[in-house]
Amino acid sequence: MRTLLVIGIGAGDPDQMTIQAIKALNRAEVVFIPAKQGKDGLAALRREICRRFMTRESWREVNYPVPKRAEPDPSYRQSVDDWHAAIGATWEKLLEDELDENGCAALLVWGDPSLYDSTLRIVGHLARRGRIAFDYEVFPGITSIQALAAKHRIALNTIGGPVHVTTGRRLTEKFPADADSVVVMLDGVQAFRGLPPENVDIYWGANLGTDSESAIAGPLGEKADAISQARATARDKAGWVMDTYLLRKRLPDGD
Amino acid sequence: MRTLLVIGIGAGDPDQMTIQAIKALNRAEVVFIPAKQGKDGLAALRREICRRFMTRESWREVNYPVPKRAEPDPSYRQSVDDWHAAIGATWEKLLEDELDENGCAALLVWGDPSLYDSTLRIVGHLARRGRIAFDYEVFPGITSIQALAAKHRIALNTIGGPVHVTTGRRLTEKFPADADSVVVMLDGVQAFRGLPPENVDIYWGANLGTDSESAIAGPLGEKADAISQARATARDKAGWVMDTYLLRKRLPDGD
Ligand SMILES: C[S@@+](CC[C@H](N)C(=O)[O-])C[C@H]1O[C@@H](n2cnc3c(N)ncnc32)[C@H](O)[C@@H]1O
Ligand SMILES: C[S@@+](CC[C@H](N)C(=O)[O-])C[C@H]1O[C@@H](n2cnc3c(N)ncnc32)[C@H](O)[C@@H]1O
Repeated sequence: MRTLLVIGIGAGDPDQMTIQAIKALNRAEVVFIPAKQGKDGLAALRREICRRFMTRESWREVNYPVPKRAEPDPSYRQSVDDWHAAIGATWEKLLEDELDENGCAALLVWGDPSLYDSTLRIVGHLARRGRIAFDYEVFPGITSIQALAAKHRIALNTIGGPVHVTTGRRLTEKFPADADSVVVMLDGVQAFRGLPPENVDIYWGANLGTDSESAIAGPLGEKADAISQARATARDKAGWVMDTYLLRKRLPDGD
Repeated sequence: MRTLLVIGIGAGDPDQMTIQAIKALNRAEVVFIPAKQGKDGLAALRREICRRFMTRESWREVNYPVPKRAEPDPSYRQSVDDWHAAIGATWEKLLEDELDENGCAALLVWGDPSLYDSTLRIVGHLARRGRIAFDYEVFPGITSIQALAAKHRIALNTIGGPVHVTTGRRLTEKFPADADSVVVMLDGVQAFRGLPPENVDIYWGANLGTDSESAIAGPLGEKADAISQARATARDKAGWVMDTYLLRKRLPDGD
């Protein structure tokens, strides 16, 4: 049976690779690496990880073109489904063409595969459909959330409190209920600027773990402009920007 | 200046250590290891990690007694504060007694330091108080949440959906609002048994990454008994049990 290893590689710093992930990587004879236009820093991390941690004698890198995603119109969900189907078809063909029947390949996933990443959904679908018979295994990675918290040297939760992880898109709708600590990812629109800033602290980070890393913390109202500026600077420096932040409602007793 | 390194060590499997964490560990001449009664598997992981990944010539392990926590009575918050103060006083004394003025020590934190762990709160307080001058750095680790998701080969979020992380104690109060995906930790009371099980799937794991690992997934109503049993078995096997689970509200379209 063919095997596909889905490996979390951390969120920017190659040294976030775990021993488990390095061992998994070295089981693969083929590594599938997306050849995306733009965002070259992201493909560069995958290459750097192979260069640094692949110790087996022979292995191959196979680049594949990433299917373009249609504009989210008319129905958001439909365009995601179509996009995932196209990516799945690409991977299925790679499994068939690039591996013999007992071959082993790896997909390297940014951060951890469990968080805002469609790899497992797509791979699970392919495995169930079974046009190509394969098994798959998953190896966790450090997420950008852990990198953010380590950078700011903070816990995400207040004592015994919950942590709500959401997207910029959702934050524009409202501040989530039932949580004083909110982590925001996938925010293309700087949704933090639209919130009432009273009694909210922000712990923000962009391009964490990379040369263009930037981090700012403080009261939301005081720091919003500095963050927008730092975000633009990080993008200028790297050619791309990804940022994550924790919003924390300040408690009266200052916990 | 003294340096304290707060290092996430993953949630059970030593191979969850990152390269970053291994490098940090090797900067420490002293590793502070709690000498807790019971839960010996937890101290054992810390020792195993030192044994496996410490490559520097000379270093010392210093064991310290963990202050007992008073029963949460009369006020829950007060007993936590007292307990943290006692742990802080212990660490302050270790920094003073075990390190010279430019010495470097490590504290090994289960999983990731940012999640339901008081180390950073206590260390931050000591640093600000400044009775002993020291700097500290934080290194992320794989959390039990990532280990859970990898084991079940799932994403935590639905497409574009939020993830709410909470405690067993809070879950007994109500199912959190604004989230279809809820991760539960620190559940000593099997709070999942108290929920209306209709249209909820559970992805459960105990002692993940260890010899006594156990994992079960399926509709909450069908799996609750099997989980209670597997939890007891894991505890028998290891002498301790820690479990984490994802609750997912099933959507009508089956995403
Ligand atoms: C498609 S999601 C993937 C998340 C990834 N699976 C993880 O575990 O971090 C991309 C989002 O992750 C966050 N992100 C990823 N890498 C980051 C980094 N190095 N610094 C800050 N945020 C990052 C940003 O919020 C970005 O919009
Ligand atoms: C005090 S919290 C510490 C969490 C830790 N900092 C982390 O990142 O996973 C302890 C809780 O973590 C979860 N946990 C820790 N290790 C686990 C494991 N190996 N398997 C399942 N759950 C675990 C359980 O919910 C447990 O009650």
